[in-house]
Amino acid sequence: MLEKLFSPQAIALIGASAHPGKLGHEILKNLVASGFKGPIYPINPKAESVLGIESHPDIRAVKEPIDLAIIAIPADFVLDALRACGECRVGAAVVISAGFRETGHEGLLREIEMANIAKEHHMMILGPNCLGVIDTITPMNASFAASMPLKGEAAFMSQSGALCTSIIDISLSAGLGFSRFVSLGNKAHLNELDFMEAWIDDPHVKIVMGYLEGITDGARFMELSRRLTKKKPFVAIKSGSTGAGSRAVSSHTGTLAGSEKAYEAAFRQSGIIRAESITDLFDFSASLVIQPLPSGDRIAVVTNAGGPGIMAADAIERAGLRLARLSRDVMDALSMALPPAASVLNPVDVLGDALAERYRTALELVTKDPGVDALIVILTPQIMTQANETARVVVEMAKVAKKTVIACFIGDKNLKTAQKILEEGNIPNFITPERAVAVLKVMWDQKRWKDTPIHIPKQATLDRDRIRAVIEKAKNEGRAELGEAEGREIVSACGLQIPTSRLCKNPQEAVESAEEIGYPVVMKIASPDILHKTDIGGVRLDIKDAREVRDAFDLITLRAQRYMPDAEIWGCLVQKQIKGDAEVIIGMNRDPQFGPLVMFGLGGIYVEILKDISFRIAPFSKEEALEMISEIRSAGLLYGARGTRRLDIDAIAETLLKVSGLVTEFPEIVEMDINPLVVFEEGWGVMGLDVRFVLKN
Amino acid sequence: MLEKLFSPQAIALIGASAHPGKLGHEILKNLVASGFKGPIYPINPKAESVLGIESHPDIRAVKEPIDLAIIAIPADFVLDALRACGECRVGAAVVISAGFRETGHEGLLREIEMANIAKEHHMMILGPNCLGVIDTITPMNASFAASMPLKGEAAFMSQSGALCTSIIDISLSAGLGFSRFVSLGNKAHLNELDFMEAWIDDPHVKIVMGYLEGITDGARFMELSRRLTKKKPFVAIKSGSTGAGSRAVSSHTGTLAGSEKAYEAAFRQSGIIRAESITDLFDFSASLVIQPLPSGDRIAVVTNAGGPGIMAADAIERAGLRLARLSRDVMDALSMALPPAASVLNPVDVLGDALAERYRTALELVTKDPGVDALIVILTPQIMTQANETARVVVEMAKVAKKTVIACFIGDKNLKTAQKILEEGNIPNFITPERAVAVLKVMWDQKRWKDTPIHIPKQATLDRDRIRAVIEKAKNEGRAELGEAEGREIVSACGLQIPTSRLCKNPQEAVESAEEIGYPVVMKIASPDILHKTDIGGVRLDIKDAREVRDAFDLITLRAQRYMPDAEIWGCLVQKQIKGDAEVIIGMNRDPQFGPLVMFGLGGIYVEILKDISFRIAPFSKEEALEMISEIRSAGLLYGARGTRRLDIDAIAETLLKVSGLVTEFPEIVEMDINPLVVFEEGWGVMGLDVRFVLKN
Repeated sequence: MLEKLFSPQAIALIGASAHPGKLGHEILKNLVASGFKGPIYPINPKAESVLGIESHPDIRAVKEPIDLAIIAIPADFVLDALRACGECRVGAAVVISAGFRETGHEGLLREIEMANIAKEHHMMILGPNCLGVIDTITPMNASFAASMPLKGEAAFMSQSGALCTSIIDISLSAGLGFSRFVSLGNKAHLNELDFMEAWIDDPHVKIVMGYLEGITDGARFMELSRRLTKKKPFVAIKSGSTGAGSRAVSSHTGTLAGSEKAYEAAFRQSGIIRAESITDLFDFSASLVIQPLPSGDRIAVVTNAGGPGIMAADAIERAGLRLARLSRDVMDALSMALPPAASVLNPVDVLGDALAERYRTALELVTKDPGVDALIVILTPQIMTQANETARVVVEMAKVAKKTVIACFIGDKNLKTAQKILEEGNIPNFITPERAVAVLKVMWDQKRWKDTPIHIPKQATLDRDRIRAVIEKAKNEGRAELGEAEGREIVSACGLQIPTSRLCKNPQEAVESAEEIGYPVVMKIASPDILHKTDIGGVRLDIKDAREVRDAFDLITLRAQRYMPDAEIWGCLVQKQIKGDAEVIIGMNRDPQFGPLVMFGLGGIYVEILKDISFRIAPFSKEEALEMISEIRSAGLLYGARGTRRLDIDAIAETLLKVSGLVTEFPEIVEMDINPLVVFEEGWGVMGLDVRFVLKN
Repeated sequence: MLEKLFSPQAIALIGASAHPGKLGHEILKNLVASGFKGPIYPINPKAESVLGIESHPDIRAVKEPIDLAIIAIPADFVLDALRACGECRVGAAVVISAGFRETGHEGLLREIEMANIAKEHHMMILGPNCLGVIDTITPMNASFAASMPLKGEAAFMSQSGALCTSIIDISLSAGLGFSRFVSLGNKAHLNELDFMEAWIDDPHVKIVMGYLEGITDGARFMELSRRLTKKKPFVAIKSGSTGAGSRAVSSHTGTLAGSEKAYEAAFRQSGIIRAESITDLFDFSASLVIQPLPSGDRIAVVTNAGGPGIMAADAIERAGLRLARLSRDVMDALSMALPPAASVLNPVDVLGDALAERYRTALELVTKDPGVDALIVILTPQIMTQANETARVVVEMAKVAKKTVIACFIGDKNLKTAQKILEEGNIPNFITPERAVAVLKVMWDQKRWKDTPIHIPKQATLDRDRIRAVIEKAKNEGRAELGEAEGREIVSACGLQIPTSRLCKNPQEAVESAEEIGYPVVMKIASPDILHKTDIGGVRLDIKDAREVRDAFDLITLRAQRYMPDAEIWGCLVQKQIKGDAEVIIGMNRDPQFGPLVMFGLGGIYVEILKDISFRIAPFSKEEALEMISEIRSAGLLYGARGTRRLDIDAIAETLLKVSGLVTEFPEIVEMDINPLVVFEEGWGVMGLDVRFVLKN
């Protein structure tokens, strides 16, 4: 798909320069130094040759076919150069030049034109404002990076060109190699989605790494991520997520969800491993590339030092992994083989005077224990310690064991050789037990993600015509907010139970309705213009007889008129008063990147003060709905803590699914709340007492 | 205080050996190599000289005064050797030998004897089972560490000898130097407290670093820590804190507080900086040693790369620090001085082609802004970047600026020289913005801690005689648990309001009391044997008339007899039913290391399901009590969220102080709960509805 970009047969460099320090010079040097095997055509109107290579004044002057053009000329000339490339049937172009979107509106227009040129000529365009592209398989370094990365199996894409240079520099020391390396730039045409798609089946890509600031198309991003992460890990840094993107919206969901929450949900639902820093990015990726995933979460620790063993055990417990329980046989054998003072309980302490052979004995026994899924081998450089030999033993044992092995050789100056042996033997090494455990946690999460079948969200059972009718009516009347009766109509068309309710135009009708429904009743103002009914005294509970109904009607309508003299008032709704065993809230708003973000939490203070809420991007599956419910801190209240009975979790999950389906099928709905959704004991279902909808304007 | 240990004039090495690999050989080599200036006396019964130094068969044979004896002989001979040292008036001994407490009971007895010898001869003993002691000022390396640390201003103590070797090895690369370096071993005599005390006023110690597994005396530890941390930072790893130390106790406090919670509270109350890993230990300590503390939390970022700038901004917001707002003047000057595409809003982006001089211009302007307290200087190695020159600029600017400056030169292979320049210029460098921010956060916390005056807890107003009487009576009767009336007597003697309550022996008395008190009333079983009254139906609420009082009396006593036929039943308590605006819980149990651990939380599900609780070690001040209240997640409910009024926070704090004073003055109280403590609106106080006490058995 991206062959012309990554594996071109011939390359033109528009803006090739003979002056060191100029981008057009550095790129050409990189191209040549990278060992690119095809012809390179420097394009420069003034030079006959650059760096000893014959140069052309214009790309049109090159008579041979060109797959890839690199463009490093001032922004003003880029579009013309791209058109020339198009005429020459160039397959892909990389625009290094800056001076586009980042400089303002005119630059943005240039990018739009750039995308048009790409479409018109069926040409891929990377950039503008990027560092370039590197492929170590081809090999080709079409970038102005100061170094070429090592050859390897990772693919990297970055929205920050400057970060690319740091990543390469660190990777050279860390020994992490790349096959594809891409600076995305301003993403005028090609974007992260194109690369994700191409790398799903790329045999040279074992892991995808990314630095992302924004996503081009949230739904497509999630779809591609899911396909990608089921095959190979995708580790990504997402920056710029705090404080940003908070929209002024009126619903609970809106005020509680920043774009950070949407990202968290999207990454989680797509199996993306989120790196919080460059260190995370490297530690996670390097380990995922070189070590097998653990088949379980039972970790054994072998150490020559008690303290770090305890630190590892602490970290394992905190991470939610398990300290493996060694089998009786293995412990007996360890007792026989190790000195009496050694500890044969996990963490296995081989003592400070352990030579490499004692490590071998312990590792042989521990790796064979079927109750062990992964190992951390800790070494501190004590006076007898054979760090290098022990490193070799770890490498050998890991090859045989076929279990995840992480080393924790704690030191630096005197351990450099040992650490090099580990690196060359494909054993990740970290100088803190906490880091080793953090990496194992990520690997175990990745294993579980890969093994979990993708749950396809079922199509929700919705009465689409009824819903469509309500939405169309509001649209035709130019209303963004729906009245209560309309909201009730929609949720009822979704199959959600709602209490009997009557719209009554005067006190007498209200009394008749109340007597029919049965006391106690709730009464609410019915007006398409009044959204926050409670705030203006527009809701009254516990109404017990005809006199109270009359009083309530007059009071409610009086206050509504005072509050909003222009409001259209239809009357009052009279509703059966329902008392459930708990009240929850389901809300939704649309994230600008990922679309429908559904929120769940317990009602009242749980949401408002404790911010005890969970999020998913719709559509999601029943399994994900159940996770949403169980992951809030106060979930215990629903599952029957403190001697109360378990409530109808399944009915809550089904309601979440209905909301998920509704907001996915009807993008006109930009916000909704069901608040409260009262929940009864298991088997007795749920009921939505109040709903609120906002449509697209 | 510890001069003989750290700065001896003469040293004897008992167990000096001519055989490489033996501890007695390696230690002697280290002693000689360290440049120790005084005489060294190898003690070996069989050799005339070791490593060319004249040897003695017995320490008694040395006729010169000896300050320090290092002992590296089998455990069986250690006590005799120590006695000989005592006879020779040796001032300090370091027992390297293992084979004590860690091997079982007999070893423990030997340690007790060791402590006796120390006392008898007024001799300090370090160890046993330790790596030794190093002093780079003296200089002296009396350890079997493989390397000598760099000379510097940090002091380190460790309960893990093996970790010492790793710490030295890492410090050599990190450029962190030590003045004192101590392996604590089994702490038979000298322990962490001795060193903390000695280092408070040690001019060679600018920071104290520690690796701790257990604390010898919690109260003393906190007292010394407070004195220490007001003068210099104390950064410590505490390991072994998960899963461990959970005692089977029956109160809320007991089940919710592990020793982890006690440590958290103790560290926080003593200003100790907790390191979660060796990396934290180094990063925090090195920065605290070489950089001034920031005078505020306003951070400026100067970067040549947009991406990492965003990452820094994210991290600053997440850490609760502030991105500095540059002054209009500074921004104008930056606009003039930097290229048009540069960003002059913090983070200041000097662009990818910035040379060292452009960094200098930006740094000069930004450091002068009075609204900036600390700086992060980010550099990625791009093609034009002058990493080394820029490093020099940062070093120069930091010297002039007298503000905290942290570098974030992101790279490795091509940045080694630049990173070395930063290190030598006392600028901490981290390869991730997140790390730089984490360090600044710790430094800002340390600054605030130093500036906060120590709040001496006021003596609580307690009627000590009444309390003493209740406790004595229970003691004399051999009871560990107090009956409700007794508990009420204690809290009332503390000046806590409790509702009127009468002990009634029969239904008739109960009716009379209820009529006097006024309905509604609450009735509770009165029995010294029944602790969890609610569980057995021993509490009834909402009793409204005489008939209900009679029914309640009979039901309560019947059920109590059924539940516990042997229980002594005194009758029922009749109490005014109180309805407050919120219910909170105050609890206390005794942590084995730190003593009285006081817990605070909102009643019911907040404590039980949400685990939304805060802890402090008693005694604590009013300021700390107020912090305890405000730091729970649900605190908003007390401060008047959702349109409710603010409750009586001050009265809660005063109650916490009463509990703090009570449990500090009466160590016989091992557990107590006030549950619930009902809270009224501001100015209306609190009332303890139910109390429970457990005394020491």
